[in-house]
Order: sequence, then structure tokens, then C-alpha cells
Amino acid sequence: MNSERPLILVTNDDGITAPGIRALIEVMNEIGDVYVVAPDSPQSAMGHAITINNTLYCDKIIIDADAPQKEFSCSGTPVDCVKIATHEILTRKPDLCVSGINHGSNSAINVIYSGTMSAAVEAGIEGIPAIGFSLLDFSMNANFEPTKPFIKRIVANVLQNGLPKGVVLNVNFPKLEEDQIKGMKICRQANAHWEEEFDKRTNPMGRDYYWLSGKFVNSDKGEDTDEWALANGYVSIVPTQFDLTAHHYIQELNSWEL
Amino acid sequence: MNSERPLILVTNDDGITAPGIRALIEVMNEIGDVYVVAPDSPQSAMGHAITINNTLYCDKIIIDADAPQKEFSCSGTPVDCVKIATHEILTRKPDLCVSGINHGSNSAINVIYSGTMSAAVEAGIEGIPAIGFSLLDFSMNANFEPTKPFIKRIVANVLQNGLPKGVVLNVNFPKLEEDQIKGMKICRQANAHWEEEFDKRTNPMGRDYYWLSGKFVNSDKGEDTDEWALANGYVSIVPTQFDLTAHHYIQELNSWEL
Repeated sequence: MNSERPLILVTNDDGITAPGIRALIEVMNEIGDVYVVAPDSPQSAMGHAITINNTLYCDKIIIDADAPQKEFSCSGTPVDCVKIATHEILTRKPDLCVSGINHGSNSAINVIYSGTMSAAVEAGIEGIPAIGFSLLDFSMNANFEPTKPFIKRIVANVLQNGLPKGVVLNVNFPKLEEDQIKGMKICRQANAHWEEEFDKRTNPMGRDYYWLSGKFVNSDKGEDTDEWALANGYVSIVPTQFDLTAHHYIQELNSWEL
Repeated sequence: MNSERPLILVTNDDGITAPGIRALIEVMNEIGDVYVVAPDSPQSAMGHAITINNTLYCDKIIIDADAPQKEFSCSGTPVDCVKIATHEILTRKPDLCVSGINHGSNSAINVIYSGTMSAAVEAGIEGIPAIGFSLLDFSMNANFEPTKPFIKRIVANVLQNGLPKGVVLNVNFPKLEEDQIKGMKICRQANAHWEEEFDKRTNPMGRDYYWLSGKFVNSDKGEDTDEWALANGYVSIVPTQFDLTAHHYIQELNSWEL
């Protein structure tokens, strides 16, 4: 590999063979030397889970014999993939970690459930500039082509400007053709939530069980949110942090009689 | 149940039979009407994972026949427990959700991997005042007695003052006797991280596998952090939020050439 090209770690949560990560690998091969370390099976909604009570397998595999990237399939979560990549597979700290392209939205509160974004956050914790990419299309046949020029511009900016310690980017793409996308917007996370619905069924043994489902509800009318940008034809970029301290509430808590 | 007493949801990530949650249930029974909905097996380090590709079981069980609480054992993650409790089990929104007492620390960056805190965060997302409690002792024989008077004071304050939308509390206890604890401190999350180490082994079939382990490194010298408080004999209380937007970086990002 050419050492003057950036070293790029690619991961995701839909699994190493998902079309979204294959599209991201293709774009990254144009930009740098690519290592892929991704889950061997779908890991959506795994949040920041890590594997501490089970063994981890991580095997070198070849999915596309004609392509230059090196690939490793891992039995763990997206966060496990980042940890094992940086500590066991890569010989130096990567210049960038990209996660995705996720099949489905990671805007608003979805960021907190997202394996895609948790992988990017883990890279951020390790001091690696990191970006999570998601397309608002759950389909396995989703069209990732329109996202590619935007990904290139965002990655070029991150490689040039860097990202401050403690900040990673959460990028979501609307499900639109390239010429329908109006541009990119820097946003805040919309104040939205899921209204859960449980589908209760009975198994053949007569025991009740549930399927989790739900409805996404956005009650945030702000035009500076990711939800607004996506609904209005823009790519949303939310700078995302992992200092979870509610600094604004420290002063008030100090007035409590504890 | 007496409807004038607060309705309290108790959960954890170590599993419904763990000594930590049994101690927390005991304290909550003195304060309100208690429902326990907790994982049927250990779910440590599950972060904010939810179960979307698998069935969920949730069964009423009796662990302590002489105690007043109602208990449900759930096959899912801590976040699943909160969702199923609020949408399928409880007949009204609880006045409080407490999670723990965790066997082991959830201070600093541990908050992001923690099933205990993710359960509290999920309750917060649903608009329920919520607190995660953790003791800096991984042992199954950990002594939870010293934490009880502090838990009562914190819960009394939360029930009286409420918590603002978007804020939950992350409470950690040092491993000390009650008379050795100097008091409680409102803190920020320390800027600490894990230095991963992977223990590589070979299984009987000759295939390599890994165990994730690591060393906790605190590089944050601030005396306003949870790590400082715990190391100096205080209970740490960190107000914790789930708006992950790095608001301070939005202005800078807007100057990028995207």
C-alpha cells in the first residue's frame, strides 16, 4: 500500500456483505488504503454494545478478489469491530473511520440505538476522525449511487480539516436522486422519539411473546434539525459527541438538598 | 396498591436475580409501589441495544413471595425491559425509573457501554424521571448496604424536584463503608477511556479467537469529574443527556466548504 494515501477503516452494522458497505468501500478505495472490519451478520440496533462474556472471531476474507481493500469478518458488534481493528489488525492508527452506509435512518434519537453510529463514536473515543453514513431506505436494493459525490466531499473536508477530539459526524441522506438533493445542511439532532407498539403473539407451545415495533414521532418544529433537512431534500450532518454530561443542569443540581 | 404512593419501575442489566437489583427493590419498596421488569440473564455492556430481529418473552415471576413488588423477567436487553414495561405491563406512566444497582462502575466513558444507564436513558426518552445507580465493586458479594441511605436521599429529591426533559442521573458509589463516604458531589463525566487488550487464543478446532479486555485510563485531572469524586470518597452524580449534538461545533462546521 502507498503510505502517502490515508489509511481508512470501514465498518457498518448491517454486516460485511450488505450493499451499503460495498458502496462505501468502493468510494473509499478512490481516496485511500482501505481496511474493512465489519460484522459477519446484521447487528442493527445494537447501540454501543460490546462483547465481554463471549469469544470474538475475526477472520480475513475475500469478497471481491479484484478490489484492493483488505477485509475481515468479525463475530462481534460494530463497536467490537472498531476495537479489534485498531488493536489487532491495523498496524497504525487509521486516518479516518467511516461506518455505513446504513440501510435506514440514523437521524434524531435513532443515533442512540444505532450500531452504525456507535462504531463511529467508538472510533472517536479512540481519537480517530470518524463519520457515520446512513440512507433513508431500509431496502436491500436501496440506491446508494446518489450518496457517493456527497460522501467524497465530506470525507475530503474531514481529511483536510480534521475533527476536534470528542466530535464525530452523523450524516444522513434522503431517499432521492442526486439531482433532487438540494445540498448539505449542518444540523442539530431533532427532538423526536419512537412510540412503541408491541405485537403480542402466542408461540406453538402456548407461550406469549412479543415483537417490538413502533412509530417514529417528530415533535420538533425547528428548521435547524436533521429531520427538517431530510424532509426538505437536504443531506443532514450532525456533529455528535460522547460527553453525555448535561452541563447546563449542573448548577441547578448543586442547589438540591442532598 | 395505594395510588398515592409513587409508581416506581425498577430494572438493571445484571439480571433480575442479581444482588444489586434485590437491594434496590428493597429500598424502593419503602418509597412507593414497585414493578420490576428486568433481564432474565446478565446483559452487561449491552449499551442501548434493542431487540428488533428476535422475539421477546416477558413473564411474571415471583422471586420473593413475602415482598410487595410485582416482578417480570424479560428475555431482552435493559432498554427492551423499559419499553415493554411502559407499553405492555404498567397501566400508567411510572413516576420514577431506577436502574441498578450495577455491580461495577458506570462512571466516565463507561456510561456509553452501560446497559444500566441505557435503561435509565430510555426511560428519560419516554419522559420518565430516571436514575442509574452503580457500585464500584464487580463482586456478586458486593456490599450494597452503604449505598441505601444515599439512594433514599437522591430519590426523595428527584420525586420532589423532578428532572427536566432530556436529563437523567448517573449515580456511582465508591466501594466504601457508609461512615467512610464523605458525601455526594455533582460532577461532569471524566474524559477517560479504555486501552483495549485482546487476549488471542486458539480453540480446540485450531481456529483463533479473542477475549476483549482492557485497562481503564483516566487522563482527566479535573476535580469536578466523577472519577475525582469517586477516588476521593464521594458519591458521584452526573446529569446525563441524550441530545448527542455537539452544539459547540455547529458554527465551525458551517464554515467548511461542503
